[in-house]
Amino acid sequence: MAQSVLLTGAAGRVGQAILADLADEYEWRLLDRDPPTEELPGEFVVADITDSEAVREAMDGIDAVIHLAGDPRPEAPWDSVLTNNIDGAQTVYEAAVDAGVEKVAFASSNHAVGAYETPERVPDLYRPHDQYRLDGSELPRPGNLYGVSKAAGETLGRYYHDEHDLSVVCVRIGNLTKGHPPIDYERGQAMWLSYRDCAHLFDRCIRADYGYEIVYGISDNDRKYYSLERARAVLGYEPRDNSAHHD
Amino acid sequence: MAQSVLLTGAAGRVGQAILADLADEYEWRLLDRDPPTEELPGEFVVADITDSEAVREAMDGIDAVIHLAGDPRPEAPWDSVLTNNIDGAQTVYEAAVDAGVEKVAFASSNHAVGAYETPERVPDLYRPHDQYRLDGSELPRPGNLYGVSKAAGETLGRYYHDEHDLSVVCVRIGNLTKGHPPIDYERGQAMWLSYRDCAHLFDRCIRADYGYEIVYGISDNDRKYYSLERARAVLGYEPRDNSAHHD
Repeated sequence: MAQSVLLTGAAGRVGQAILADLADEYEWRLLDRDPPTEELPGEFVVADITDSEAVREAMDGIDAVIHLAGDPRPEAPWDSVLTNNIDGAQTVYEAAVDAGVEKVAFASSNHAVGAYETPERVPDLYRPHDQYRLDGSELPRPGNLYGVSKAAGETLGRYYHDEHDLSVVCVRIGNLTKGHPPIDYERGQAMWLSYRDCAHLFDRCIRADYGYEIVYGISDNDRKYYSLERARAVLGYEPRDNSAHHD
Repeated sequence: MAQSVLLTGAAGRVGQAILADLADEYEWRLLDRDPPTEELPGEFVVADITDSEAVREAMDGIDAVIHLAGDPRPEAPWDSVLTNNIDGAQTVYEAAVDAGVEKVAFASSNHAVGAYETPERVPDLYRPHDQYRLDGSELPRPGNLYGVSKAAGETLGRYYHDEHDLSVVCVRIGNLTKGHPPIDYERGQAMWLSYRDCAHLFDRCIRADYGYEIVYGISDNDRKYYSLERARAVLGYEPRDNSAHHD
């Protein structure tokens, strides 16, 4: 029988990329603050991620969670990311443990490490010849409070893995765009994630075996400065796209 | 003229250790939730760390902040550490930047990395022959939600340094006890911090020049598994105590 997967923040762009390719692969329970405006697979739960009762109920019978819900704005104010992203992530992890869920894939962000892009490294960092790589073992270095909130979600995942035996993978998502990579934007091309690579990556997060991991969620771009080594080795991620092969 | 230093959580044990040796070294402004029960140097502000208006006012004319306030219980529930420790730290950093403060020393904790003490490493980890060392470059690995909150405070500090040019040092405080190290408690002896080493360490946090640092706050214990290298090199920390030299 197909695994039951809870997808929070299902109506966002990452959720759309995932459902576009994986609608028939799992028994989906979708959760979002707003009711759907189009036909979607599985059940739909309308609830805010800060509603811990609703989140608890949504975990019933679930094998794995893909947690995308939260304030997605890099410029989001502190109060919002504290509530929606940090407190929201704790609500999800705690409810997952209590419900006996096996795995949580947490949507972290390139913004958790955005301040590694120092004036000394940029723009070389974004170019194919440059060999500098972040690999997920480095300390967080956020360039905004949104990034701070994503780093906190990663640390919460570490705790829930170590102390409660939950399998947790944090995916530092790059620049997800549909169809083609960002144009005239070197940074966006360096961290491009195509829709189909995104779906495949989260598919691997559901199927693979792991304890606690931080991986980068990008396509295999010539310009990349994020290593794909852990995603390949632990998850079996095999990206098919590369921003250099598009006009 | 002596520097003006704001000490939050002044009535706690770390605050007492600091004031015991450094009362005459600085112009102190002490902040705590409860009014003092004994005579203390400088001004005293009675305010909760979550009261952002009061915290802003307390920053006026301050050169450096030692931020100790927060829920100090390793077993503290999530709601308390979210509010008092994570939101509290953001309030302090933000107010410090707005007031033009130069430096913030943030009281982090050994609990930010407590889950490195795995069953495979313990108890050897606590013994002099063992060479395993944490040095502050490792990712957080908290054994409780209190530790998660301290790791979040460190990441906030990284952000306020990178984006707002605040000097921030995070001190992962070990086991602070007065007079002598913990008895019959190997872990406590490994991470012992004497009162006088504590005061000296925070004195160095006020006087030294640095950008962003994570250091361990322990005495020079034979049993240690935390490196003192960064504290020595960057801050000029010269601990005088060692739990092995006490009965």
